[in-house]
Amino acid sequence: MGGGGSRARSRGYRAERELVATLWRLGFAVMRAPASGARIKRADYPDIVAIKDGKVLVLEVKRRSEVANIYIDSEQYSKLMNFAKRAGGKAYIAIKIPYREWVFIDASKLERLSSGKYRVSKEDINNGLRLGDVLKQLGIKVGIEEFMSD
Amino acid sequence: MGGGGSRARSRGYRAERELVATLWRLGFAVMRAPASGARIKRADYPDIVAIKDGKVLVLEVKRRSEVANIYIDSEQYSKLMNFAKRAGGKAYIAIKIPYREWVFIDASKLERLSSGKYRVSKEDINNGLRLGDVLKQLGIKVGIEEFMSD
Repeated sequence: MGGGGSRARSRGYRAERELVATLWRLGFAVMRAPASGARIKRADYPDIVAIKDGKVLVLEVKRRSEVANIYIDSEQYSKLMNFAKRAGGKAYIAIKIPYREWVFIDASKLERLSSGKYRVSKEDINNGLRLGDVLKQLGIKVGIEEFMSD
Repeated sequence: MGGGGSRARSRGYRAERELVATLWRLGFAVMRAPASGARIKRADYPDIVAIKDGKVLVLEVKRRSEVANIYIDSEQYSKLMNFAKRAGGKAYIAIKIPYREWVFIDASKLERLSSGKYRVSKEDINNGLRLGDVLKQLGIKVGIEEFMSD
């Protein structure tokens, strides 16, 4: 989390809910993992799974207060990739920074550090994909109207 | 719920967890909705979504203490069918009765009553599909070993 306690958390939560709403509007069936601390351990699932006509988008969401390197531990990374592989889908890290659009990083292209963690660099974030690019990579066509109203 | 308070609930919860584990063992990526009362309203999601190579199984789970008609209200039914349609998957009612195997009823074949509710009859339950039948309907092939160990 980008720090800042419960107000930042609730802002982040709202951003994530908006992403879910956008995916739903684009025609996906969307499922969101239980919030942290729920009975089902959150870490077992990706944050968001969105499915359209058998095409599967698997997202791990990271919210940061500013552009900075993001580190993902190897267990979380393995779970994410394994889920996407089983589903026959594609995994992305979805990153939200205040006052910027969501960016998406193809998780299969992340750099593995000697510590075992995976890094999303500042440069990755600045060059991140937009949702439209992700849809294209998944082979999903969306009408321009649905897309523009985002 | 089949009544009986928290002990029955926890037994039902365990049965559902076992179904999730079985689907996982069969190679599915499986996601389970947050338990009732969680921050995210449970009714928004199917109980279980299992995906394998782009094939999507959408389950609404019903636990009963004995074979009896089950009624599903029209809003829950619409949400289930809409989710499956968007995902390009198939929806089933997964029913667990103590000391019996899970049975699965193709949700698209349920009888709509004049009240708007949908009914799973006792007969439907007694003639319900087994997991192997469901996999076949989805076009999923599973090695006999994986299957036998269930």
